[in-house]
Amino acid sequence: MTKFQALAQKYGTPLYVYDFDTIDTKFSALKEVFKARKSLICFAVKSNSNLSVLKHMAHLGAGCDCVSIGEVKRALVAGIPKYKIIFSGVGKRDEEIEEALQNDILMINLESEEEMNRVEMIASKLGVIARISIRVNPNIDAQTHPYISTGLHENKFGVDLDSAKRMYIHAKNSASLDPVGIHFHIGSQITEVEPFREAALVLANLLRNLKALKIEIKFFDVGGGIGIQYKDETTVDLYAYAQSIFAALTGLDVTLVCEPGRYLVGDCGFFLTRVLYEKNNGFKRFVIVDGAMNDLIRPSLYQAYHAIDVEGKEDHATSVCDVVGPICESGDFFAKNIALPALEHDDLLIVKSAGAYGFTMSSNYNTRTRVAEVALEKGEDRLIRQRESFEDVIALERAYL
Amino acid sequence: MTKFQALAQKYGTPLYVYDFDTIDTKFSALKEVFKARKSLICFAVKSNSNLSVLKHMAHLGAGCDCVSIGEVKRALVAGIPKYKIIFSGVGKRDEEIEEALQNDILMINLESEEEMNRVEMIASKLGVIARISIRVNPNIDAQTHPYISTGLHENKFGVDLDSAKRMYIHAKNSASLDPVGIHFHIGSQITEVEPFREAALVLANLLRNLKALKIEIKFFDVGGGIGIQYKDETTVDLYAYAQSIFAALTGLDVTLVCEPGRYLVGDCGFFLTRVLYEKNNGFKRFVIVDGAMNDLIRPSLYQAYHAIDVEGKEDHATSVCDVVGPICESGDFFAKNIALPALEHDDLLIVKSAGAYGFTMSSNYNTRTRVAEVALEKGEDRLIRQRESFEDVIALERAYL
Repeated sequence: MTKFQALAQKYGTPLYVYDFDTIDTKFSALKEVFKARKSLICFAVKSNSNLSVLKHMAHLGAGCDCVSIGEVKRALVAGIPKYKIIFSGVGKRDEEIEEALQNDILMINLESEEEMNRVEMIASKLGVIARISIRVNPNIDAQTHPYISTGLHENKFGVDLDSAKRMYIHAKNSASLDPVGIHFHIGSQITEVEPFREAALVLANLLRNLKALKIEIKFFDVGGGIGIQYKDETTVDLYAYAQSIFAALTGLDVTLVCEPGRYLVGDCGFFLTRVLYEKNNGFKRFVIVDGAMNDLIRPSLYQAYHAIDVEGKEDHATSVCDVVGPICESGDFFAKNIALPALEHDDLLIVKSAGAYGFTMSSNYNTRTRVAEVALEKGEDRLIRQRESFEDVIALERAYL
Repeated sequence: MTKFQALAQKYGTPLYVYDFDTIDTKFSALKEVFKARKSLICFAVKSNSNLSVLKHMAHLGAGCDCVSIGEVKRALVAGIPKYKIIFSGVGKRDEEIEEALQNDILMINLESEEEMNRVEMIASKLGVIARISIRVNPNIDAQTHPYISTGLHENKFGVDLDSAKRMYIHAKNSASLDPVGIHFHIGSQITEVEPFREAALVLANLLRNLKALKIEIKFFDVGGGIGIQYKDETTVDLYAYAQSIFAALTGLDVTLVCEPGRYLVGDCGFFLTRVLYEKNNGFKRFVIVDGAMNDLIRPSLYQAYHAIDVEGKEDHATSVCDVVGPICESGDFFAKNIALPALEHDDLLIVKSAGAYGFTMSSNYNTRTRVAEVALEKGEDRLIRQRESFEDVIALERAYL
C-alpha cells in the first residue's frame, strides 16, 4: 500500500493532503534569493487558510498577507506576529478597518482614495495612526487567466501612478495616517519574470519621486503571483526574479515584502478521491469519482489543469476519459480528455498541485460536507481539519425550523 | 425606509431574502397546469436547500428531488414525507445508497448500469427491494449554458435508450430491484417548450415498449429545467409545457413527476448588499459592495446576468459601471457595464432573482463568513439561517492547532 492509499484508508476520501516539507523547500528557496536585502515573506492566506498551515508559516518566520478581517484573525490565532500582518483587498468594511487598527498590524494596503478617506476617519476616531501602503496599478499585462489578472486599468484593483502620488502626499500630511509602504500585485500564476521587472521599475521610480518629497517608504511590496507548474508551464526563475527587483531598487533602502500564496502551497497539496464508477455511454468514457467541484472548483471556474495520478496502475494501458464528480452539472469535472488506465470501484486518484485555492474555495453545494485536511511532516501525518458532518452543515439553520 | 432597507438594517448585509409568497404563486401555477393528471412536484433541493424553504415546500405538498444523502436528510428533517423523496445524481457512494434504502424513500434514480449493479448488490445485502427509476439521456440539446446542459451524449448524465431498455429488463428480473420510474432531465434554465416536448416523446415511446415487455412504469419524471426571466429571456409557457407532456403520454396511466428548482425559488430570492466605495480609476467606474463571489458565484461561474436595483434612487441620472465585490479576483463581480445612479457608502443594492443556486453554492473563500438567510411570509420576516461567525468558520480546525 502506498502512502496515499494508507492516508485515504485512515482518513477517508475525498481528502486534502499537504506536505509541509515541500512548503519548507519552497520557502527556503525564496528566502535564499532575497538574502542580499532585508525581506519579509508574507504568505497569501487566501490560497490556503488552514490554521495549521499558517502556524507552520509562523515557524518559518513568515508573515501573512490577509484580504479580510477573518484572515487577519486566522493569522493571529495561528501565532503570526501582528507586526508581520498586512491587510489588503479592494473592499474593506468599516468594522474590518477598525479591528485591523485595534490589532496594530504592520500596515493596511489601500486600493482607492475613497478607502483612504475611510481609514483616516476611523483611525482619527480611534485616536491611532494607521500605517498604510498603497497598491499601485502599473497597467501591466501579466498574461494569465482574465479572472486572476489584476494589473490592468480595466481591473478593480489599485490606483494609477498620479492618484498614488496624490494619496501619499495627503497621507504624509495627515495626523492619522503614516505612509510606510508601496505595493503592486499584477496577477496570479505568472510564469515570466518580465511583468514583475516592469512593475518593479515603475514603482521604484515612484518611490524615488516620493523620496524627493520627503516621503520615506520603508516597505517595497512586490505582491505575489509567482506561478507553479500545473502542466507544462515554464516557471519563473527565482534568482532572475529577485535580481530584476533588486536592479529596480538600486540605491533605495527598503525592506522587500513578497506575498506568495500558490508558490508556497500549490505543489504541497494533493486531493485524494476514489472512483465510484466507470461509465461508458458509447460516445465517451467517464470516470465518476467521489470528489466534486464543491471540493475543488478550479477546473470548473478557471478551466484549470490538474495532473491526475493513479497509484499502483502506472504500467497499465490507458484510454482517454473525463474525470467527473457526482454533482448535477456538466461543469463538475476535474479533467477532460486525459489518458488513464481502466479503473475500478474504490481505485484512488491523486489530483496534484491542489494545495492552493482548493479547500479555501470549497462549498457545501449539493449538501456535500466539506472534506478533511491532513498535514504530512517529516513522514508523519496528522489531521488539521476534521471532516464536516451533516449536523455541522445544518447547525445554523436547525434552530429556525 | 423601504422593506428591503428595513431588512438590511435589522439583519445586516450581505443578506439573502426569500419571499415565500412568491413560491406559493409559482407552485400553484405549476400544479394548476398539471391538474388533468396525477402529479407530484419534487422540489430540486440543490437550488435552495435551506431547511425552512424545504419545510415550506412540505406544507405546499411538494416532495424533494435530492442529489446527495445530505439532501435526503435535509428533506427528512424538514418534514418531507419519505414517499415523496427521490435520490438522483451520477455518483452515489455505497453509504449513500445504503442510507437511502434504509430510509425507504420513493425511488433511486439510476444513471448507469454500473450504478444499478451497486444498488442491486446493496439492496440484496440489506434484504430490501430497491425502487428505482432510470435517467434516460434523449440526446436533445436544451440550448442553455454548456455547464448546465445535461441532455446530450457528451455529458456524464443518464443512459441511452438501448442501455435503459436493457437495464429495465434486468431490474424486472432482479429480486432486489423494482423498476417504478422513468426519468429525463435535459438541462437547467430552459426557455423553450420544444426540448421538453421532444424528450417526453422519446421517453413515452420507450415506456410503451417496456409495457409490451410487461414492465409497468408508474412514475414519468420529466425532471426540472424550467427557466426564469433573469434579463429579457422568454420563459416557458407552463400550459403549453404541460400539454406537450400530456400529448406524449396519451393512453398511459402514469403519475407525472416534475422536479423544478430555479422555477420555484429563483424569483423569490433577493441578495442584499451595501456599497462600500465608488471608485473611478479614470478608465472605468467600479461600485465596490460588501457582497462577493463567495456569496453568489453565478455571475463568475456561468457569466450569469442578475438585474440590480437601487432603492430610493430610481429617478437619479445613471452612468455605466461594474458592480464588484471585495475578493481579490477580477472574477469577483455581480454585473459588468450596467447603468446605475451615483452611489454612496452604505447605499443598498438589491441583486434580483437570487433565490436559486445562490446561498447553496456559497463558500468561505477569503475567510468571509457565510451570510444570513431571511424568509418573508405574508408581510412578516424571520431569520431562517443565522449569519456565520469567525468561530464557526474555524471550529473544525482549531482543535488541531
